[in-house]
Amino acid sequence: MPVPVPNLYPPFNTVRLSHVEFGVTDLAKSRAFYVDTLGLQVSEEDSSTIYLRAMEERGHHCIILKQAAMAEACFLGFKVWDEDNLDRAAAHFAGKSLPVEWVESPHITRAFRTRDPQGIPLEFHARMDRLPPIHQQYKLYNGVKPLRIDHFNCFSPDVDASVAFWNDIGFRVTEYTEEADTGRLWAAWTHRKGGVHDLAFTNGFGPRLHHTAFWVPTPLNIIDLLDLMSTTGWLANIERGPGRHGISNAFFLYVRDPDGHRIEIYCSDYQTVDPDHEPIKWDLKDPQRQTLWGAPAPRSWFEEGSLFADTTAVPATLKASPIIAP
Amino acid sequence: MPVPVPNLYPPFNTVRLSHVEFGVTDLAKSRAFYVDTLGLQVSEEDSSTIYLRAMEERGHHCIILKQAAMAEACFLGFKVWDEDNLDRAAAHFAGKSLPVEWVESPHITRAFRTRDPQGIPLEFHARMDRLPPIHQQYKLYNGVKPLRIDHFNCFSPDVDASVAFWNDIGFRVTEYTEEADTGRLWAAWTHRKGGVHDLAFTNGFGPRLHHTAFWVPTPLNIIDLLDLMSTTGWLANIERGPGRHGISNAFFLYVRDPDGHRIEIYCSDYQTVDPDHEPIKWDLKDPQRQTLWGAPAPRSWFEEGSLFADTTAVPATLKASPIIAP
Amino acid sequence: MPVPVPNLYPPFNTVRLSHVEFGVTDLAKSRAFYVDTLGLQVSEEDSSTIYLRAMEERGHHCIILKQAAMAEACFLGFKVWDEDNLDRAAAHFAGKSLPVEWVESPHITRAFRTRDPQGIPLEFHARMDRLPPIHQQYKLYNGVKPLRIDHFNCFSPDVDASVAFWNDIGFRVTEYTEEADTGRLWAAWTHRKGGVHDLAFTNGFGPRLHHTAFWVPTPLNIIDLLDLMSTTGWLANIERGPGRHGISNAFFLYVRDPDGHRIEIYCSDYQTVDPDHEPIKWDLKDPQRQTLWGAPAPRSWFEEGSLFADTTAVPATLKASPIIAP
Amino acid sequence: MPVPVPNLYPPFNTVRLSHVEFGVTDLAKSRAFYVDTLGLQVSEEDSSTIYLRAMEERGHHCIILKQAAMAEACFLGFKVWDEDNLDRAAAHFAGKSLPVEWVESPHITRAFRTRDPQGIPLEFHARMDRLPPIHQQYKLYNGVKPLRIDHFNCFSPDVDASVAFWNDIGFRVTEYTEEADTGRLWAAWTHRKGGVHDLAFTNGFGPRLHHTAFWVPTPLNIIDLLDLMSTTGWLANIERGPGRHGISNAFFLYVRDPDGHRIEIYCSDYQTVDPDHEPIKWDLKDPQRQTLWGAPAPRSWFEEGSLFADTTAVPATLKASPIIAP
Repeated sequence: MPVPVPNLYPPFNTVRLSHVEFGVTDLAKSRAFYVDTLGLQVSEEDSSTIYLRAMEERGHHCIILKQAAMAEACFLGFKVWDEDNLDRAAAHFAGKSLPVEWVESPHITRAFRTRDPQGIPLEFHARMDRLPPIHQQYKLYNGVKPLRIDHFNCFSPDVDASVAFWNDIGFRVTEYTEEADTGRLWAAWTHRKGGVHDLAFTNGFGPRLHHTAFWVPTPLNIIDLLDLMSTTGWLANIERGPGRHGISNAFFLYVRDPDGHRIEIYCSDYQTVDPDHEPIKWDLKDPQRQTLWGAPAPRSWFEEGSLFADTTAVPATLKASPIIAP
Repeated sequence: MPVPVPNLYPPFNTVRLSHVEFGVTDLAKSRAFYVDTLGLQVSEEDSSTIYLRAMEERGHHCIILKQAAMAEACFLGFKVWDEDNLDRAAAHFAGKSLPVEWVESPHITRAFRTRDPQGIPLEFHARMDRLPPIHQQYKLYNGVKPLRIDHFNCFSPDVDASVAFWNDIGFRVTEYTEEADTGRLWAAWTHRKGGVHDLAFTNGFGPRLHHTAFWVPTPLNIIDLLDLMSTTGWLANIERGPGRHGISNAFFLYVRDPDGHRIEIYCSDYQTVDPDHEPIKWDLKDPQRQTLWGAPAPRSWFEEGSLFADTTAVPATLKASPIIAP
Repeated sequence: MPVPVPNLYPPFNTVRLSHVEFGVTDLAKSRAFYVDTLGLQVSEEDSSTIYLRAMEERGHHCIILKQAAMAEACFLGFKVWDEDNLDRAAAHFAGKSLPVEWVESPHITRAFRTRDPQGIPLEFHARMDRLPPIHQQYKLYNGVKPLRIDHFNCFSPDVDASVAFWNDIGFRVTEYTEEADTGRLWAAWTHRKGGVHDLAFTNGFGPRLHHTAFWVPTPLNIIDLLDLMSTTGWLANIERGPGRHGISNAFFLYVRDPDGHRIEIYCSDYQTVDPDHEPIKWDLKDPQRQTLWGAPAPRSWFEEGSLFADTTAVPATLKASPIIAP
Repeated sequence: MPVPVPNLYPPFNTVRLSHVEFGVTDLAKSRAFYVDTLGLQVSEEDSSTIYLRAMEERGHHCIILKQAAMAEACFLGFKVWDEDNLDRAAAHFAGKSLPVEWVESPHITRAFRTRDPQGIPLEFHARMDRLPPIHQQYKLYNGVKPLRIDHFNCFSPDVDASVAFWNDIGFRVTEYTEEADTGRLWAAWTHRKGGVHDLAFTNGFGPRLHHTAFWVPTPLNIIDLLDLMSTTGWLANIERGPGRHGISNAFFLYVRDPDGHRIEIYCSDYQTVDPDHEPIKWDLKDPQRQTLWGAPAPRSWFEEGSLFADTTAVPATLKASPIIAP
């Protein structure tokens, strides 16, 4: 595949990723993870649902935890520019013969649910309830001091197809990995909001949600989280890191919530607002692609992910194997 | 004045601030400051001009240093979405009876010069030469490890008028200070690229350039710069800080180049991409507005700035006095 | 005065500074400061007394807060090598005609009270109750994450005399400031435990306690404390900093407790265990002595301090004035 | 074995570890590693030898690199309190029937060579040439900003015997690992200078030098080194980390020099000056002993080490296997 070319005049203007809803099997345990350990703030909660936001967010929530019979990722939420763009988005999905259903979504003015061609359940909206700023209420900061939701990463059984679809609606590729011999995409990072990504795809049994990432101030906050998790009963939930990704140049840590949903703690990527920002190509065989410092990712990182609700996952089309830790 | 309302459908799409040209009276000394001390990278240089970029930038330059008879800020550069937007920008300025002159600007495809209503000299372009990424060439990082140009801050003799003009072309206010009794703006921070600002205005004899800011990874890099400047002959060039701004929540340091051009070193503001991001209002009398930790700014910080080339500055319309260090 | 020469074979072996008792006028408010804001851990408390320790300390306490009618520093505590050294210490003080009184000191095996020649009330002991380690209970870390008490700094009316006395009992000078014309000591830093100081003296109305310092992991913890104090009602208690001392090379912040007792938050000095470690001399007129980055200290920093209980303070013998912020 | 009991009145007073001499097979390549990458400062060099010191050291050298036919650790150097203690040290080793040879050691007043009972070659001295301080010459800081040599760690074939010997000369155990069933020591950390260790022993084919450690200011310096090594051709020399040790609580990274000599970069252990500081016991089977965050060490870390010059290594007496990364 040639270098991905962004669509600079997409049919509607997506501002950024917005929120995700997780089905969780033990709400109290999930609260202990997301609130007491990661440090997300509770916007609202009852016996079956918890709405959370990060420290610099003014939208009502970036994560919804919902007590459920089984662990799953219910949908990925995106925010568009305004109500007009929301209608144009609905029209675009409908025009692609994708399902469009307008739904009641708490704290959101108008929202519709749809899916991308690989089946990822999506929710689009233009306006979520806004809360007063808390970013200077330093007494509230704790855990890893999460500042904002940063991105989603999904397994896709056909990354070429995924990128083509999202590229068409204005998601611009910043970095990508291709199979040297076939030129097919193994993975790609695409953004709307001016960082390395809002949404990334990696080849694998899918669609499944690989991880949801939160931005934190500095690498020291990630070290603090490791110390905290290691000494409060969450040792087994540390999966990979800390390290520096070759791709994105970000300092990272991957942890798993009590149901196995993967959370990345992330800082220090770079600005990508230029429409002529050239994507960086990586070779699938380059070990520094994953970790600049050379350490390979564990097998679970390549194989495990959250199933999407009511969604059939299928094997990936590419069989090439990346480098896996022994 | 009521809360500033952003124009969400401006006449042209400005991506971000881009670069600034400084007239400097001793090019070698300025090089020692910007290259050897701050750590900016030389893209190109000859006996009269030096082009610099920061570590994660791919555009050819964010600062041009030009040997000159007197210290001045020659113009502020902005990047628009594409050539079509550039033409629309030129038409917009011309339609406001502002001077539009197409110029040869090195390493830029097409550029025009104009002024805002207060007289700030501006250069708009859509495409600057791109250089290979160096953000993972860690051997090159030194000084304060500057990652990218972040914003300009200008003295304006009439901040209400400045904000009205820039607001109209899509610059959205994130925070502002008003005089409690008159409701007039004392200062405002406006952005395009999704941070707290690309361009800010503060009441004062103007137009003059108050400062140009660079983004760095963490507060520790700012501490490193203080240690370095203090022990390499630049002690007197440290003007204010380190501290945390109330406005923007950023960790800051202000230093002066050999000609007195003020440079801010800056990190940790917050994401503002939402079109419905509410501006934060501050009272001019609140001491935490300037510095969250309470320390007032020195008198020079309120009074000194770089004159723009061939530009007449006039006294400010507001006479209210902020809090100044004794 | 010639360069201070350490007594490498002192009459008894002092290990380190140990603890301080403060008379405080509102115990609840002091608790809010030391426990809820600085993050010290409560070892024991009742309605009139609170015992505190820092995160890596195993001794029962480093600060005793005692409800009192007036704010004062009751005594400075020091730990000696063993009971034999304690007896030798008592004999040494008695031999200098200084008062020696064996006292009941809670959680301490044997202790005596005495004074140095300038009248500073002192308590010496060899063995305090030991508590289980908590340095890896990361859930407990909060506030500025204080790791250990680091040093005391006292106003002395005669620094030459103070240093001569403490030097004789093995406190080795690491850095000092002298009046250029008279060669008399303005200030001196003396240690036992291998850092820049356990006990420092600075010329002034005394004896009074200038400050008590706590060691923290990195400068970022100090920035966190500034953010916290600024937004939880302690803004006026921030006195000086953050900055880098020329002397000691430490990153510092000075804050005041509710009674005005001054606390320094401190990190990154250097190792001084070598018996032939040469003291560094500074000129009283060197502005980088106080702050490497050039900012002068406020007047309060030179004039205010905690009176010692039942102790008469007298004017300093030296009248030279250091550089004071306007 | 019972809890190790320190000898509080050893036959001579060792101040701290001092320096190490490495035989290296390509002096230029070693210089590129130690000077250009780690950032150690050259005190003196010629075509066959390079003397290095770290940023806050005033002794002439902490590492001697010597061009040699084969890679080896020539000796471990220790500094004692004064010449009288040096003579007493020599007498003590001689009294144990260990070889004592007075040698010419460059930049050292008087030095003798000896061995511990397991055969580790040692050099003791009281006085090395002192150099002017450079810790405030911030322009010189680079690489990982090494502040001082921190400790040696050796493979010992009989850790019980090693600890008994060094304990007897005043090295106090701070932490140790024992085999649960036999109560025999697997590893122990012993100190003189008030940190977690000057000298540690770990069970294995020995005596061999496991690693030499340098103290750095913060974990961010270690991240900087990883970024630098990863992008300047030293990727394969990164062996383990970054991580937090359970034992010592230190943040660590292990790298290998061009000959395989292992260097630890280390920060944030804790103060241990109290003579009644209780050692912490760890179970060999506790995975958090090695890495608080759970990641096991690679096989090389357990098996590889530097041979000492002219020294016979023998298999370890304990066969128990710690946890090794697959």
